[in-house]
Amino acid sequence: MKLYDGGKAPNPRRVRIFLAEKGLDVPLKPVDMGAMEHRGEEIGCRNPFRELPVLELDDGKVICESVAICRYFEELHPEPALFGEGAFGKAEVEMWQRRVEHRLFMPVAAVFRHLHPAMKEWEVPQVPEWGNANRPKAIAFLEFLDTVLGERPYIAGENHSIADITAFVSMQFMKPARIEMPEGLNNLQRWYEKQAARPSAQA
Amino acid sequence: MKLYDGGKAPNPRRVRIFLAEKGLDVPLKPVDMGAMEHRGEEIGCRNPFRELPVLELDDGKVICESVAICRYFEELHPEPALFGEGAFGKAEVEMWQRRVEHRLFMPVAAVFRHLHPAMKEWEVPQVPEWGNANRPKAIAFLEFLDTVLGERPYIAGENHSIADITAFVSMQFMKPARIEMPEGLNNLQRWYEKQAARPSAQA
Repeated sequence: MKLYDGGKAPNPRRVRIFLAEKGLDVPLKPVDMGAMEHRGEEIGCRNPFRELPVLELDDGKVICESVAICRYFEELHPEPALFGEGAFGKAEVEMWQRRVEHRLFMPVAAVFRHLHPAMKEWEVPQVPEWGNANRPKAIAFLEFLDTVLGERPYIAGENHSIADITAFVSMQFMKPARIEMPEGLNNLQRWYEKQAARPSAQA
Repeated sequence: MKLYDGGKAPNPRRVRIFLAEKGLDVPLKPVDMGAMEHRGEEIGCRNPFRELPVLELDDGKVICESVAICRYFEELHPEPALFGEGAFGKAEVEMWQRRVEHRLFMPVAAVFRHLHPAMKEWEVPQVPEWGNANRPKAIAFLEFLDTVLGERPYIAGENHSIADITAFVSMQFMKPARIEMPEGLNNLQRWYEKQAARPSAQA
């Protein structure tokens, strides 16, 4: 088994954090996204969309899409449960994971991809107006999360989950996207510092 | 239990199709999205984002997000499996579901929301350039799906799954989004007609 890894980019990062939380050690094959190596044939023949990460199993089968890779490992190694437990618990994590992806992760990515000069070749066409429209969406969700985290320790409730990993990676991605963290979101800040202090945050 | 339903909109529709595939009869509470009823307090106190559908359980707990609602029912009623079976099967469905969502469902929605005059109050600000940028993305994915469906009966492989439901609903959503189906995609057309002939397509 090997994981074609993309370094600092947010999707490769959330898979590595997920694996660290599970205590799993999967051999990594580094792919230099800065040098556009993921656009080459080594990745292209495994993922038609030439995105990272890509997991290749020992029998040659391939899983793309970060959350699909995480779910594969969740099924094989259920503890600690990062996609929730029981029908309602799993639905709750899925609900929060989707909220974080659609209202924070994707808006931050849109700001980065549509406004950052380095993204000109990656996002064609860049639509700066769309990038700008996403900044307030991301901020509004951070404010919402601050309220949520005033009532419970983790985003989806009492337990740490993939929704926390996605939110943590999204917030770190705000720096290259040049979105400033709003002041006064103390619950969110406290949660962020706890996430950053987990050993998995170094992955 | 009751499902606050939003009629013809694509997310309410994919949950109803999912339930029909499972053979489940969940009481529906219709909400008139045309009359903006989903922006009122009945939905607002259950879903802060005022979107449909919303599932309310008998104990008052609430699940939002269409795929989270589907997953809840998958856990309670595993047959027929619409999220895949086994670790690799589940990962494969998740991979295809995400590809369809990100590369078809969301692009079609972006065309509709950013270009349709009726969406002015729903999508603020409308960014027509972003709407236009999404039309070729949707078309490119349809062409890709046509190749995939030349090799197997369903999007994620040998079995019908939620990825097929999401793709079917997305393609029906192309009509209000005013995206014309490209000609010559015969595999895709054959798959679409088989989906449309399933009893669940009437849900």
